[in-house]
Amino acid sequence: MRIVVVGGVAAGMSAASRAQRFSADAQVVVFERGGFVSYGACGLPYVIGGEVGAFSDLVARTPAQMRARGIRVRTRHEVTDVDARAGTVTVLDRAAGRTTTEPYDRLLLATGVSPVRPDWAHTDLAGVHVLRDIPDGEALDASVRGAKRACIVGGGYIGLELAEALRARGLSVVLLEKGPEVAGRMLDRPLQAQVREELERGGVDVRCGVTVQGLTGRGHVTGLQTDRGLVRADVVIVAVGVTPNVELARAAGVRLGKTGAVAVNARQETNVPGVYSAGDNTESLHRVTRRRVHIPLGLPANRMGRVAGVNMAGGEARFPGVVGTGIFRTFGLGVARTGLTQAEAEALHLNAVSVDVTSTDHAGYHRSSRPIHVRLTGERGSGRLLGAQLIGHNHLSVKRVDVVAALLGERATAQDLFDADLAYAPPFSGVWDVLLVAADRLQRTL
Amino acid sequence: MRIVVVGGVAAGMSAASRAQRFSADAQVVVFERGGFVSYGACGLPYVIGGEVGAFSDLVARTPAQMRARGIRVRTRHEVTDVDARAGTVTVLDRAAGRTTTEPYDRLLLATGVSPVRPDWAHTDLAGVHVLRDIPDGEALDASVRGAKRACIVGGGYIGLELAEALRARGLSVVLLEKGPEVAGRMLDRPLQAQVREELERGGVDVRCGVTVQGLTGRGHVTGLQTDRGLVRADVVIVAVGVTPNVELARAAGVRLGKTGAVAVNARQETNVPGVYSAGDNTESLHRVTRRRVHIPLGLPANRMGRVAGVNMAGGEARFPGVVGTGIFRTFGLGVARTGLTQAEAEALHLNAVSVDVTSTDHAGYHRSSRPIHVRLTGERGSGRLLGAQLIGHNHLSVKRVDVVAALLGERATAQDLFDADLAYAPPFSGVWDVLLVAADRLQRTL
Repeated sequence: MRIVVVGGVAAGMSAASRAQRFSADAQVVVFERGGFVSYGACGLPYVIGGEVGAFSDLVARTPAQMRARGIRVRTRHEVTDVDARAGTVTVLDRAAGRTTTEPYDRLLLATGVSPVRPDWAHTDLAGVHVLRDIPDGEALDASVRGAKRACIVGGGYIGLELAEALRARGLSVVLLEKGPEVAGRMLDRPLQAQVREELERGGVDVRCGVTVQGLTGRGHVTGLQTDRGLVRADVVIVAVGVTPNVELARAAGVRLGKTGAVAVNARQETNVPGVYSAGDNTESLHRVTRRRVHIPLGLPANRMGRVAGVNMAGGEARFPGVVGTGIFRTFGLGVARTGLTQAEAEALHLNAVSVDVTSTDHAGYHRSSRPIHVRLTGERGSGRLLGAQLIGHNHLSVKRVDVVAALLGERATAQDLFDADLAYAPPFSGVWDVLLVAADRLQRTL
Repeated sequence: MRIVVVGGVAAGMSAASRAQRFSADAQVVVFERGGFVSYGACGLPYVIGGEVGAFSDLVARTPAQMRARGIRVRTRHEVTDVDARAGTVTVLDRAAGRTTTEPYDRLLLATGVSPVRPDWAHTDLAGVHVLRDIPDGEALDASVRGAKRACIVGGGYIGLELAEALRARGLSVVLLEKGPEVAGRMLDRPLQAQVREELERGGVDVRCGVTVQGLTGRGHVTGLQTDRGLVRADVVIVAVGVTPNVELARAAGVRLGKTGAVAVNARQETNVPGVYSAGDNTESLHRVTRRRVHIPLGLPANRMGRVAGVNMAGGEARFPGVVGTGIFRTFGLGVARTGLTQAEAEALHLNAVSVDVTSTDHAGYHRSSRPIHVRLTGERGSGRLLGAQLIGHNHLSVKRVDVVAALLGERATAQDLFDADLAYAPPFSGVWDVLLVAADRLQRTL
């Protein structure tokens, strides 16, 4: 049994490890286009910001360590084509410039996503960056040294995390967002404003409703032309979203879903026999809506990879799906969500209602207590929970989103959440944890 | 409708508020033996330790504030007898020294617990304390000023919280525990040792397996005689447990459960018509074992109070029960548990198995990451979760116990926990949250 994995980061490496562990007989080969495998891409902003010592710290396992576990890892090897009928892939050794054909019994597409580059971002100007992999991070880090003015384009996870990181590096930061507010795809509108205000407190010049039209500079970027005038910058980060890498899937005859990512079943099988897909390039089942979604995040990617690895090696595993959980920190603020926002629920024509509670994360009288805001969303009639959004001024306080995330997987009701016997001591929460306060209020409105 | 509430702290005040809110017609009267109502007793150690400004900060609502909401609050009024047949209580006005008879239609016993005082602790010596209410706290605080050596007797929640508080106040601290380890009723043996080691790192002289025989001193305590010799101390805290205050229940003909606390149904009704019981003096249903337990803690007390209040006022509410969640901080350590420990499960003849995982609370490469230990317990055959114990070196990290607590209420399995779509970003957790790592390992052993 020869298992070929295309892509050696989260999903790919999880799959390779699992397959190898499940079946010692299987020959597992990983082709990775880049120079690094098995690293935590989510940590890149924190290396930039100085909270992680070095980019190499993000590497969980080196190719040599993987080889010691019986997995063949070929970095700088790019799979350029798939012949699903023949059961082969075409591999370009980028160092040698040589192409070979490699057979497979099972093929995993773990090709991830690429940052979206608007037309204006296709440039040769130095100082213009995206942040997806370690070389991106190293390039950005080099640009930041000696730079004074950064402009981040895009107010999503990466943009918001980088805003803090670049302020920590002493740069002035302008953040441009095309939409009316930051964190627009993550939170309902009232909560978005809270995030923007925190950025502003942190010294970020946030400008929403701004469209970038072009770049200025010769050799090195000096600014951005926008519909609201010129923004000077000697470092520009383009963080306007990602798009799944599906070229190989197309080549293999693999069906894509409506989201544009690869369609799979719960075993991570595509429509092409022997071809699996996992990770950021792949759709997943949303357990609240039962629809297929494309949510490229670390945990689902790793989880899909494990499932694919077991199944490719002859085992039986199923991906349970996601509930749309996400979390980030920007400056002092923790921001988390799970399930559906009110806006998302309404777009799906669910009879949704949300309640907002502002309280403290710990007992109000305890000196460690900080404000926390919870928006909890439920469905009228059924009483079931649909989602939660949290903003906490001690960032760690929003990790309690996990309670709702876990209950969403059980299709629990607001009453179930209210009945939960949550932990209480003054340095941890109020006697009624803010989640319970929100659940109480929600179940009385449902 | 006249509703009489005996005891004005957690359960009693919750009940009074709910009853009054549910039925504006109801006349709600609260008799409180002490001088304070509606305060957070769990905050007492943090006032001692300086993390809360003043004892008065613990008061959520004053009697005047309660009166403004239509609730009559009589502090320093002790209910000394109940005539359930006549529907009256005997009330001693402690200030006036006068006794009256008060009628009720519904009576709530929210009489709480009293600290256990061993024979040797019945003393007139100054400097010997228990910590249950605000006057206890004020007395202890006064004793601590100018004191040099504290001895805490008992290694439970209060003893462990006070050990930190008194070290913060600059005292030398000896902690004496009769059993073989601290936190003995809360954790399995291997985890108890971790707590002791943290106390020792904090400069506490922990001595286990020691029995106190008596006190020394004239007028003021100077030390404790033990089976292992003399311990010098100018402040002694007796924190060896609590016992439910059930004298009035007995007087009313109310049945007690096997635990010694008041037996109630899910509506908080006792066996005596019109007489309810709620809070620390009352048993509750354990949702994992379906047995009656006596777990006197803040959240269940408040919850029972609310349920009793609604029902007394003519509504319909049910107490869902507890799952045995508890949490505390001592020095840098957070300690939490929910459900059953391995030892508790074995004592109930469950076919239980536990796994231990030591990992980091945040991404291992992030500078904020600290060690966390999770012991997760499940049932062979059914695969269901039975409990979790957590010890974290950033104390806040153990609040994730709530995820397991919530799932225990749903009778979820280890697989359900593993499938949960928990939040991940490097300053919040590893990509596989330590709970998921533990769940994965557990479900493979079940």
